[in-house]
Amino acid sequence: MLTKEDNELLTSAGPDTPMGQLLRRFWMPILLSEELPEPGCPQKKVKILGEDLLAFRDSDGRLGLVHPVCPHRGANLYYGRNEEGGLRCVFHGWKFDVEGNCVDMPTAPCNSPYKDRMKITAYPVKEAGNIIWAYLGPAEHMPDLHSMEFLLVPESHRYVSKKWQDCNWVQCLEGAIDTAHFSFLHMVIASDEKKALDLMQHAAIGSQSVKNDRIRWVKEDPMPKFEINEFPAGLTIGGARQADNDELYWRIAQFLMPNHALVPSAFPGENYHGQTWAPASDTSCWIYNYTWNPDRPLTEEEREACRKGMTVHAEVDENYYPIRGPHNDYLLDREEQKHSSFTGIKGVSEQDAAVQNSQGPIVDRSKENLGATDIGLVKFRQYMLKRAKALAQEGQEPAEARNADKYAVRSGGWVASAEKKLSVVMQERFGHPVGYAGTEHGLASWEGNK
Amino acid sequence: MLTKEDNELLTSAGPDTPMGQLLRRFWMPILLSEELPEPGCPQKKVKILGEDLLAFRDSDGRLGLVHPVCPHRGANLYYGRNEEGGLRCVFHGWKFDVEGNCVDMPTAPCNSPYKDRMKITAYPVKEAGNIIWAYLGPAEHMPDLHSMEFLLVPESHRYVSKKWQDCNWVQCLEGAIDTAHFSFLHMVIASDEKKALDLMQHAAIGSQSVKNDRIRWVKEDPMPKFEINEFPAGLTIGGARQADNDELYWRIAQFLMPNHALVPSAFPGENYHGQTWAPASDTSCWIYNYTWNPDRPLTEEEREACRKGMTVHAEVDENYYPIRGPHNDYLLDREEQKHSSFTGIKGVSEQDAAVQNSQGPIVDRSKENLGATDIGLVKFRQYMLKRAKALAQEGQEPAEARNADKYAVRSGGWVASAEKKLSVVMQERFGHPVGYAGTEHGLASWEGNK
Amino acid sequence: MLTKEDNELLTSAGPDTPMGQLLRRFWMPILLSEELPEPGCPQKKVKILGEDLLAFRDSDGRLGLVHPVCPHRGANLYYGRNEEGGLRCVFHGWKFDVEGNCVDMPTAPCNSPYKDRMKITAYPVKEAGNIIWAYLGPAEHMPDLHSMEFLLVPESHRYVSKKWQDCNWVQCLEGAIDTAHFSFLHMVIASDEKKALDLMQHAAIGSQSVKNDRIRWVKEDPMPKFEINEFPAGLTIGGARQADNDELYWRIAQFLMPNHALVPSAFPGENYHGQTWAPASDTSCWIYNYTWNPDRPLTEEEREACRKGMTVHAEVDENYYPIRGPHNDYLLDREEQKHSSFTGIKGVSEQDAAVQNSQGPIVDRSKENLGATDIGLVKFRQYMLKRAKALAQEGQEPAEARNADKYAVRSGGWVASAEKKLSVVMQERFGHPVGYAGTEHGLASWEGNK
Repeated sequence: MLTKEDNELLTSAGPDTPMGQLLRRFWMPILLSEELPEPGCPQKKVKILGEDLLAFRDSDGRLGLVHPVCPHRGANLYYGRNEEGGLRCVFHGWKFDVEGNCVDMPTAPCNSPYKDRMKITAYPVKEAGNIIWAYLGPAEHMPDLHSMEFLLVPESHRYVSKKWQDCNWVQCLEGAIDTAHFSFLHMVIASDEKKALDLMQHAAIGSQSVKNDRIRWVKEDPMPKFEINEFPAGLTIGGARQADNDELYWRIAQFLMPNHALVPSAFPGENYHGQTWAPASDTSCWIYNYTWNPDRPLTEEEREACRKGMTVHAEVDENYYPIRGPHNDYLLDREEQKHSSFTGIKGVSEQDAAVQNSQGPIVDRSKENLGATDIGLVKFRQYMLKRAKALAQEGQEPAEARNADKYAVRSGGWVASAEKKLSVVMQERFGHPVGYAGTEHGLASWEGNK
Repeated sequence: MLTKEDNELLTSAGPDTPMGQLLRRFWMPILLSEELPEPGCPQKKVKILGEDLLAFRDSDGRLGLVHPVCPHRGANLYYGRNEEGGLRCVFHGWKFDVEGNCVDMPTAPCNSPYKDRMKITAYPVKEAGNIIWAYLGPAEHMPDLHSMEFLLVPESHRYVSKKWQDCNWVQCLEGAIDTAHFSFLHMVIASDEKKALDLMQHAAIGSQSVKNDRIRWVKEDPMPKFEINEFPAGLTIGGARQADNDELYWRIAQFLMPNHALVPSAFPGENYHGQTWAPASDTSCWIYNYTWNPDRPLTEEEREACRKGMTVHAEVDENYYPIRGPHNDYLLDREEQKHSSFTGIKGVSEQDAAVQNSQGPIVDRSKENLGATDIGLVKFRQYMLKRAKALAQEGQEPAEARNADKYAVRSGGWVASAEKKLSVVMQERFGHPVGYAGTEHGLASWEGNK
Repeated sequence: MLTKEDNELLTSAGPDTPMGQLLRRFWMPILLSEELPEPGCPQKKVKILGEDLLAFRDSDGRLGLVHPVCPHRGANLYYGRNEEGGLRCVFHGWKFDVEGNCVDMPTAPCNSPYKDRMKITAYPVKEAGNIIWAYLGPAEHMPDLHSMEFLLVPESHRYVSKKWQDCNWVQCLEGAIDTAHFSFLHMVIASDEKKALDLMQHAAIGSQSVKNDRIRWVKEDPMPKFEINEFPAGLTIGGARQADNDELYWRIAQFLMPNHALVPSAFPGENYHGQTWAPASDTSCWIYNYTWNPDRPLTEEEREACRKGMTVHAEVDENYYPIRGPHNDYLLDREEQKHSSFTGIKGVSEQDAAVQNSQGPIVDRSKENLGATDIGLVKFRQYMLKRAKALAQEGQEPAEARNADKYAVRSGGWVASAEKKLSVVMQERFGHPVGYAGTEHGLASWEGNK
């Protein structure tokens, strides 16, 4: 229920597009820290926002993200040497540092001014939360790095992963905002208790028991009522289902500009989960997934579960490609689908990927037929389109980029009596009407909204 | 020897093309029955006439062929659940029956009129002769299913198979009309009797002996004289070669509108063979192959021979892709080609595929140089182009679609004295001047032409 | 530092392009002799200058290169039979000889004039130096085959190989003219003597010892001074580096019109090496490599080294595709790159391929930044562009095609006092100012320049 024009605007992230420009006002994840494990280690190819780049950690540990084409003869610095203080092209030895400066040109006399004129494009890079982030926008508008809670907790308290997906990033992110689909896509139907529990372990619904009330409420009410609030870093999407005794079971997700979302499952004491979608091209993206607990280190058992593809994490190979993907039809098992789970596909992340990819490389939103349960998507799209158009047409910079210190919200679930508004429910659940719960844990907080 | 325009018209089968519209006036094979083996079994993707569709047999056994895109958010119903009476989308649970009606919409209130407005395109489907057929044309012009003889005999009397081929369907069908090529493409040249007989077993020429006269006649006369007759369901293509004692060896093929052909090999008492070409895209097709005997069940030995790729049947893998195909150069053996068979490729079906694919994805008929032995092709093309243009330009529906009861002709071989006309030869061979031999076997017959 | 237009002109070799026409004035290598090993052997597909052709050696041993499409129905003669005196199409038996004449048409009466009108395009073919060459230009301009020295020595004195590469041929050839890159791309940095020597064996730098002066000179002077001379068959590119005692170490390469280059490594008594680049498409080429010794047969040890990928020869599979290529990132070993060789890639040929492919399918020369060490490239491009434009715009045939007897030059290295000009250095090194050293070995020589 978008026009074709708005759909194209929403989904195009190239350098010369309005949405591409909006995304370039924020820090983008480009690699996991483990992909550049030490000073002087091998450089890595990076595809982000349609650009083919090269990331490296130089011999002094400084991070760089550069255009990989040597300006001399066009050889690719991917084959270059990561030497003292820079990348040296193996063709004729020209060498560039993390800022893109040519720091050695052995084919020219020592003091040639030619060397100083040779520069390659380089983008600012930061490292936080076991992720390497880059800023591809105009230097004068570079914001601080967003203070999401998983970035602020000790490393021991979080687990971070990534996976590749072969479709447009927006339809992936929309899966996180559309919390109505939990009543179907991720449902377990196995009648055998042990089998059902095993399948449930892969879900992000946060349950330790099949007989859990939350599962039942999600199953029994496929029409959550939504209340959506704007806050300085994005949107809060609250979906309320009928619980017992006239109470409502709230599942509250957070969208953080421009490409993050937090999962609505956690009850107090449970782990939090979130995801960030980094467009590679317009028909592919890297999805960064994180699980954190603000109060305690994750156990080795929890980490191992993440590695095996529990909750938001997918089971991936050594290149971070999904083990179960379109290449093998997600190992869909029709017998399992008949008797055990709604999809016959193992893993919440893989179930999401199956439907999202099945929408096509870029879903045609002009052919959709939305309803009341899709109100979160509608608001999200309006939110993004408004900001992209404001930047492109009026030069209005997105306010969220200046609110990097207002990203430390939490998401999760709660049960409350039916008459309560979302902000009241959040005050009860998080101790704060928009989910800033950080102060008690020594985290950054947004005083202005208290 | 067609213009480029007529070649494009002849070979384009998309929804908006004249030939695509002509083909849509007839029932098309979409699957073997064995691909949807039981009620509620997994749905199957179908690509037919350029359209990506989904076929399923619902829990009540009813067959459906639908556009697979859920109108809600565009998820593909291929991942859906084949549940009681319909396919349910796993994304948000919308459910559709074989007629394309939305029969459940759990994200909307129970009696929402929204549900009744949601429809997906669905095509009529029939099952006959171990094949599932669909009609993709306008409802008001839907014909009866064509009464081809292999559809009418008991299941025990027929064997049906299919294979994929990566080129335009018309050049495949033309191979069946062009019976002159038997003097070359399928010839066995092995001097060793045992070897030759083994190779011959794969040919559709109908011989049990290398010293067979028929083989010799085909080998010795590469210039059959053609006589071609129109009949109410298509064209009879008779090719006559010099036999012994001034007699002619007739090989009589039948073309049935719009995409069937029967093989000219059978002498009385021998098995009959035929093929139907179903365009997937304009550069690929599914070929359905059938062997039948009107008088008796096929033996298990005959069935096993079909499975191994004898006569019109190819050796295929579990997805019905040829074991010997362009991906492995048909396992062409140059030593075999030098000493044993004309092509060095095993299998009549594979030999056909090799030359047909070698013509390119769509053969450029404007560069051909045809001769007297190609007259069958010329007539076939005129026949098709005339009807496609009549439908497109004048809205004239093809008469053959209304003659569905006149498809039960036979094809085969006969030896007759040289002065006899084709209709007389057919009366001798089939007991009927256009090959309707069905009455004696209790089959439908075309009284009007008797 | 070319305009986009000149870059396109330089790199486009199709039939209707200026450079394509210039290349078609010369003999092109199409196969190794071993690919058509005997009369009547299987035909081979050939892709050359953008054309898809078919080469065969007929039953009488005559070589043919033809357009492979049968003019009857468009079947590809690749599936045909290489029979007595020609290729017979397996579809309907039409047969063509090496000159493209239809010599049998069994589907037409014996004396049909139709047969004489059916011709397929056929190009002249020659065999020399274990290579099969073809001429694709206008018949009236067909030159003699160029008398390169490796073609003139006894077969025992040479080794010839080929490999596939997936980029435009010009950037491959430029690697041979740009002798400055030896100071980097092919450098060995291992400190272990044995390891270094082993790596060095793969280089074309002509050394038996790591402590060799030549290696040291190349390493220590990355800014060779170039002197470039035209001669009747191409360009001599001399690059001089500082040696010891104020002498210069000259490395002298030869470019021979339009697509050959000789390696600058050989000192007197050492083996000579050269390469010819045959465009397949504009983004791929076959590279023919040759090693020869004018004075003696190559030893079996030398041949085995070539087979294993020493000097200009690559390690290839049975289809002449590189074992180490873009498909496996050249088996680049980052540890080796850190400690042993400049690239971490094994083999000079593979190192060249890595940087050349990394420039993209066709390098964008409008974005280069050239310097003094790139003067050879600049001259080469001017040389080629001038001749392509002269032919296209003024119909001026390239003189080099008429100088086929002036190709027997040699290339190599020499140490000389600093004041000497290139021609003097060449007289010292080769006994001739432009490198014609053939007379003493009974080879063709260019008397006019003596």
